[in-house]
Amino acid sequence: MTGRDAGAALEPIGNSPVMVLVRPQLADNIGACARAMANGGLFHLRLVAPRDGWPQPKAWRMSSGAHRILDEATVHDSVADAVADLHHVFATCPRPRHIIKPVLTARGAAAELREICGRGLRAGLLFGPERAGLDNDDMAQADALVRYPLNPAFMSLNLAQAVMVLAYEWWTADDPTTPRALMTNETHVATKAELENFLGHLIDELDACGFLRNLPKRPGMVRNIRHFFERGEVTEQELRTLHGVVTELAVGRRQRGRLEQEEAGG
Amino acid sequence: MTGRDAGAALEPIGNSPVMVLVRPQLADNIGACARAMANGGLFHLRLVAPRDGWPQPKAWRMSSGAHRILDEATVHDSVADAVADLHHVFATCPRPRHIIKPVLTARGAAAELREICGRGLRAGLLFGPERAGLDNDDMAQADALVRYPLNPAFMSLNLAQAVMVLAYEWWTADDPTTPRALMTNETHVATKAELENFLGHLIDELDACGFLRNLPKRPGMVRNIRHFFERGEVTEQELRTLHGVVTELAVGRRQRGRLEQEEAGG
Repeated sequence: MTGRDAGAALEPIGNSPVMVLVRPQLADNIGACARAMANGGLFHLRLVAPRDGWPQPKAWRMSSGAHRILDEATVHDSVADAVADLHHVFATCPRPRHIIKPVLTARGAAAELREICGRGLRAGLLFGPERAGLDNDDMAQADALVRYPLNPAFMSLNLAQAVMVLAYEWWTADDPTTPRALMTNETHVATKAELENFLGHLIDELDACGFLRNLPKRPGMVRNIRHFFERGEVTEQELRTLHGVVTELAVGRRQRGRLEQEEAGG
Repeated sequence: MTGRDAGAALEPIGNSPVMVLVRPQLADNIGACARAMANGGLFHLRLVAPRDGWPQPKAWRMSSGAHRILDEATVHDSVADAVADLHHVFATCPRPRHIIKPVLTARGAAAELREICGRGLRAGLLFGPERAGLDNDDMAQADALVRYPLNPAFMSLNLAQAVMVLAYEWWTADDPTTPRALMTNETHVATKAELENFLGHLIDELDACGFLRNLPKRPGMVRNIRHFFERGEVTEQELRTLHGVVTELAVGRRQRGRLEQEEAGG
């Protein structure tokens, strides 16, 4: 997927929160933030006093095609100006010190942002500069702080990765995908009767070849085989393949049996 | 936080999954992956046929101090070799095609990885090269696929950000932080009696200055004021500040009142 094509269809998806990068230093990071925003269905980007000015071609190159987000980004002198038209402002803050403010996890923030935006209100998230993070005056302009649960032994989080986690949680908060599903594409999950049909085929062949000749052990062996094949969903395509495997293995055995008989007889 | 200091204390936290980067192209990305792994408490990194060879100093520079992860990374010729000692292998795959395999969300994968590693088994996750992703042979070596819920209109996910999302979900799966909490640091949430004491102070002063002189409207006005201050948790420190604000505003009014009387009388 080339950069330009990737983002051609990018546009705002409903009312979504504004990402406010406060005094960002590197244009590379701004571009990577735009890419992360696109991944999570975010669109609105505001820059407060970017260190190296704006626009910076490097940002577009790093955005992997999220050009429209950068094209429509606005630049502001102050946090106050960047948030003036918003109803709710959250501030990301890895290490809150001496601040009295609600603190949200990334997931908690995403849920509240969905709720706020769902009511038609405008919300924004402040992200601090690469090294220092937000200062106390920045944070005083926020309704709540957002602190990601991450390894306290290694707190150095890249700016674009901070945006990525939030964008991912924003998207996930509204995504119905189940945690585990079976990907079947053009085939279907087999019914128990279809599975039973295969097990009958397999056991017939195992009886025929003598694998189950120990009659006292036979019920336990059959049960073990059944347990293996019953362990999870089996698709119709897989059952067709397994039928073929059993048939072909049995054919080979029978042919060898005939050859051996012929050799013994010859 | 300087790069070196940030990662000085990095070490494995219990049994954690192995991140396997398959045919990674850019050393920058490998370093950024190590940083993301450190953020999420992951430690074990394996590289399958890195395009530009290994080691690459650029990776260390981009890792923001996660040097130990890179120092201990191993290099392998094939996916089969890289996963040979593992019990479970998941493969990240943004667009599964014609594959019959369980598909997990990032959150579902993290929960299963916690469960697997908690039983003392070794698990690993395959991440494909930057442009092409994993090929079908790579995916055939995995027990399950992992597909993040993300914007289908913009699927171009940076390798380090793919690792970041997984590392974040891995850490979060074992993190007890509540989605919303009040950060109070060195102060405490005020009791209802303390809040009532403040409201009494405020209303006394509002009676004294005449703000509540309209007696028919007084109950509603008092109730509105109460609603505002009762809206959420208030800290003891905030109540002390609010007592001070009311006292000082009232002092100023009284002094002005005296001055006006003196001027009128003089």
